[in-house]
Amino acid sequence: MDVAVIGAAMTPFGQRSAWLDDLLATATVDCLADAGISTETVDHLYVSNMASGEFEGTTGVMNALAADIGVTPAYTQRVGQTSASGGAGLYAAWQSIASGASEMTLLVGGEKMTHRSTGDSSDIIASLTHPVEYSHGVTLPSFAGLTARRYLDRFDVPRESLAEVAVKNHGNALDNPDAQFHKEIDTEDVLSSPVVADPLRLYDYCPVTDGSAALLFCPVPVAEEYTDEFVRLSGVAGASDTHVVHEREEPTWMGAVAESGKQAFEMADCEPADIDIAELHDMVTLLEPLQLEALGFADRGKGWQWAPEGRTAPSGELPVNTSGGLKARGHPLGATGVAQAVEIYRQLLGEAGQRQVSAERGLTCNVGGFGNCVTTAILEADR
Amino acid sequence: MDVAVIGAAMTPFGQRSAWLDDLLATATVDCLADAGISTETVDHLYVSNMASGEFEGTTGVMNALAADIGVTPAYTQRVGQTSASGGAGLYAAWQSIASGASEMTLLVGGEKMTHRSTGDSSDIIASLTHPVEYSHGVTLPSFAGLTARRYLDRFDVPRESLAEVAVKNHGNALDNPDAQFHKEIDTEDVLSSPVVADPLRLYDYCPVTDGSAALLFCPVPVAEEYTDEFVRLSGVAGASDTHVVHEREEPTWMGAVAESGKQAFEMADCEPADIDIAELHDMVTLLEPLQLEALGFADRGKGWQWAPEGRTAPSGELPVNTSGGLKARGHPLGATGVAQAVEIYRQLLGEAGQRQVSAERGLTCNVGGFGNCVTTAILEADR
Repeated sequence: MDVAVIGAAMTPFGQRSAWLDDLLATATVDCLADAGISTETVDHLYVSNMASGEFEGTTGVMNALAADIGVTPAYTQRVGQTSASGGAGLYAAWQSIASGASEMTLLVGGEKMTHRSTGDSSDIIASLTHPVEYSHGVTLPSFAGLTARRYLDRFDVPRESLAEVAVKNHGNALDNPDAQFHKEIDTEDVLSSPVVADPLRLYDYCPVTDGSAALLFCPVPVAEEYTDEFVRLSGVAGASDTHVVHEREEPTWMGAVAESGKQAFEMADCEPADIDIAELHDMVTLLEPLQLEALGFADRGKGWQWAPEGRTAPSGELPVNTSGGLKARGHPLGATGVAQAVEIYRQLLGEAGQRQVSAERGLTCNVGGFGNCVTTAILEADR
Repeated sequence: MDVAVIGAAMTPFGQRSAWLDDLLATATVDCLADAGISTETVDHLYVSNMASGEFEGTTGVMNALAADIGVTPAYTQRVGQTSASGGAGLYAAWQSIASGASEMTLLVGGEKMTHRSTGDSSDIIASLTHPVEYSHGVTLPSFAGLTARRYLDRFDVPRESLAEVAVKNHGNALDNPDAQFHKEIDTEDVLSSPVVADPLRLYDYCPVTDGSAALLFCPVPVAEEYTDEFVRLSGVAGASDTHVVHEREEPTWMGAVAESGKQAFEMADCEPADIDIAELHDMVTLLEPLQLEALGFADRGKGWQWAPEGRTAPSGELPVNTSGGLKARGHPLGATGVAQAVEIYRQLLGEAGQRQVSAERGLTCNVGGFGNCVTTAILEADR
C-alpha cells in the first residue's frame, strides 16, 4: 500500500510557556485543519516523544491527547527512539498505513524542555547514552568535540568549514517564522563563542527547545479522494549502530545513517543524485557533513566542503536545512524528525514561503544519540 | 502478509537483582534459542517498556540491547503505552511484518521496578493518569476501589466473587515456574488482607515486579521454512477511551477493551465462543470480570460469576490466566502484554508443562492505565 502525507503543521519552536499537552494539541489540530480532515476520521495516533516522564512527570501524553482533540477511540501509542523519536514516528506511521491497519494515521512529535535547568536537561538527554560513557563524563556534546577533532585531523579540514554550517542554517531560519532563532551570524560569531568541547563552541550546537510538529498519513487512494496535491512517503528505513560509541571502528563514519539511507533509497527506487532537498540532523555542525558523506551525497572526507562552497545553500545543488535545521529552527527532541518532514512536505508542495526552493523529492535524516539508531525518509511530490 | 510467532521466552518474574538491560538480554537470547534463529536474521527490534528513564535513568535501552545481543544494524524502537506497552508491542511487531518492512522482528517487553520504594513506584505509575486525577489523590488502585464499589452495588455482586479471581490465579501460578508467587491462598486470605481502597484489599491487587518476556515474529511463509509448529497472530487491535476516567459514562464498562476486542475478532474472523483460553489484565481482581464482559465472553453484569462457578478455571470452558495472571505471575509493566502472549504461545504449542490445557485459539487483553488504551490479540496454533 503506497503511503501519502496529506497534512502538516507545527507550533513555533523556541521557549514556550505552554506545556507538552498543549503543544501537541496545537500541532495536531492545525495539521487536521491543514488537511481538511475531521477528528473522527483518525484511527491511529502516534506520539513521538523522548522523555515526557522525565521532563514533566507525565507518561500518558498520547492518551491525554487522544481525548483532548477528540480522536478517541483511535489506537494510541508513544514512539520512543531518543532524539530520533520523530523519525521513528514516520516509520511507525508508514507501517500502520502500509500494513492495512489504518486508513488515517495522525503523527505528532513533541518535547517540552526549557522549563528545566541545563543540568537537568543534560542528565535527561544523557540517559540515552550507555551508562559507562556518561559515568566518565562523556555526553553527546563531548562526543561531538572528540569526533570533530578526529574529522578535522584525518581529512585536513579547516575548522571554519564547520562554522559555515551554523552560519547557513541561521541564515535559513531568518525566513522560517516557526524557527527558534531569527538571528544572522557569521563565522567569527561561531569561532569566538564559548568553548563547549574543543574544538567545538556554543554556536556549533543546537539549543534546548520546546515545540511540536504533526503530519497526517493515509493510503494514496484515500489521499486522492481528498486532495489533488499531496506527498508520498516513498522510502523510510531505520538502522542501529553500536550503543557504546568508542566501539565503532571509525567514529566519523555514521554507519546507521549509511545503512538506513541505503535501505530508504532502495525502497524509493532512487539515488542521492535524485534528491532535491534534505533536512539533516545538525544537532552539532559536524553532523551535517558527516551525514552528507554517509548518505552518499558527498565523497568520503569531503562533506565539509559543501557549506563553504554554497552547495547546501538554498540556491545550491542540494539545499540542506532550509528550515534552519536543529541549529536554528531548534531541537525539541521528539518533535525534530517530524518537523524535518513538515519542512520537506511544505517545500514539495510550494508552501515554504520566503524560503521556497524548487524540489520534487526530499530526504530527512533523524539521528538518535550519536548515530545509535537513525531513520531516513524520502518524500516525493504528487501533484 | 500473515504473521507468525516462532519463538517465545521469559525470565522468571519477581524481585530480581538483575537490571533491565540484563533482563531484556536474557529473554531475547532465550527467545532466539527457542526458535533456533541466529541474531543476524533479526532486522527489527522493538522494546516494550513504560518507564525505564524514571525507574533506572536510562532511555536508550533498545539501542543498548541491540548491541548487547548482536542484532545491530537492526532497526530499534521503544514502544510505549503505559501498562499496555507489551500489547502495543505485539501490534507494532505485527505491523512491521504485515507491512513487508521486516522478515524477522524480535519483540521484548520488560520493566525493572522493585529497587524503587513503593512511593516512588506509585508516583511513576501515576504519571500515566491525567494530572487532574493524581493531584486529587486518585491513583489506579483507588480508581479500582471506586469502580468495584459501583460494580458490586449495580449488579448485586457478592464481594467474595472478586476474591475468587485472586484465589484462582494464585492457584494457577503454582504450576508456573516463572511466576512471582507460588503461594496458595483462599478467599479468607483475600478478605482479611489489609484494605487498600475499600472494598478492595491487598490481595485483590497485582504486585510490583521485575521481569522480561520476548517473542519472535516473521511472515508465515518464512515460519514454514523454519518449523512445523508455530502460532499465527491472526488478530490484533487497539483502542483508546477517555483519559479522565470520571468522564466515562459508566466506569464499569471497559469501552476500549470492547472496541479493541471487536476489531481483533473481526480481523481473526472469529467470535468469543471460538476462544479456548485467555490471558486478561487482572491488575486488580475486578478487571478480570469486567474484561470478560467487555470482550463478549460474559453477559453484562455477570462476569463476576465465572470465577466462583469454575468457568475460568483450567478445567473450565474458558481457562483465564493459566499463567497466574498479573496477580500471581506478576506485572512488570512493559513486559506484561508480551508475557500474556508467551503464555498463550506455550499453551497453543503444548509447552505449558503442569498447567497445560487443550487450546487451539487464545486471546490476550492488555490494559493501559484504567482502560485508557487497550490492545487485544488473538493467536492460533498452526501445527
